[in-house]
Amino acid sequence: MSLADTHGITVAFNQAKKSYNEGGIPIGSSLFNSRTGAQLGAGHNERVQKASPTLHAEIAALENTGRLRAAVYRECTLVRELDSYTSNSPCSMCTGAVLLYGIPRVVIGENSNFKGEEDLLRSRGVEVVVLDNPECTELMARFIKEKPELWNEDIGET
Amino acid sequence: MSLADTHGITVAFNQAKKSYNEGGIPIGSSLFNSRTGAQLGAGHNERVQKASPTLHAEIAALENTGRLRAAVYRECTLVRELDSYTSNSPCSMCTGAVLLYGIPRVVIGENSNFKGEEDLLRSRGVEVVVLDNPECTELMARFIKEKPELWNEDIGET
Ligand SMILES: [Ca+2]
Ligand SMILES: [Ca+2]
Ligand SMILES: [Zn+2]
Ligand SMILES: [Zn+2]
Repeated sequence: MSLADTHGITVAFNQAKKSYNEGGIPIGSSLFNSRTGAQLGAGHNERVQKASPTLHAEIAALENTGRLRAAVYRECTLVRELDSYTSNSPCSMCTGAVLLYGIPRVVIGENSNFKGEEDLLRSRGVEVVVLDNPECTELMARFIKEKPELWNEDIGET
Repeated sequence: MSLADTHGITVAFNQAKKSYNEGGIPIGSSLFNSRTGAQLGAGHNERVQKASPTLHAEIAALENTGRLRAAVYRECTLVRELDSYTSNSPCSMCTGAVLLYGIPRVVIGENSNFKGEEDLLRSRGVEVVVLDNPECTELMARFIKEKPELWNEDIGET
């Protein structure tokens, strides 16, 4: 794991913990420059905090980063600190945001049940890097056990 | 064109005009119940107004509608009042949001250069209805002539 990816995943995981402590869904994301490693932005799922159906962690990270020129996105990495426990994750909306802005590289912190839109990302030429971070898994497992109904709402299941 | 679709496109177009009058990107969207025709929400592009890279019209409509149960999305129509002038519209992010929530039907107000993610929507079983509304085209043509740089930013081009 590169230093930049380690940094990115740490920033994203801290966002996830913040959301968990606020009573929200514990998924975080960060956006950084792949070349310099500079952090551009970060965010976490806002379903509970802002009653938002669209601010998934990745969308929140892009939103908090603000308006960028297209060229900036072209050298970015988008990190999502977790990709377990969902049948379509990174979800189609967040996958689509990556494609819209031409973000060339996505890092996923953990992925114990690989499926979903990773294939779509790869088929469009996006590099998908899957790390293996047990902390990410543990936080999510705890959350889903505590609040399964909230999790199902976020993935459009119930 | 059904009465419900006419209503949906009118609501969306009024959102687009509102955004134009605010100096923003004139694209609007609405969400309504396909069975009853009841309006659930509406919104417009917020790139200028909220400095937002993610609040495309469709995302704004979903966001303004608020948190819904999955079953509600399953009988919705999402309307975007225009689909011209873009190389990938409905864009991949908004297409992905439709897939995330299992919205079964998308209405596009105008589409004079058909390409982009409509194919992805259709391949996943979403019904895509293209209407033909010259008012939508005129407003967008005027805007792109006036502010081409803003438009290119929104579609991730420059
Ligand atoms: Ca997965
Ligand atoms: Ca098109
Ligand atoms: Zn997502
Ligand atoms: Zn869009």
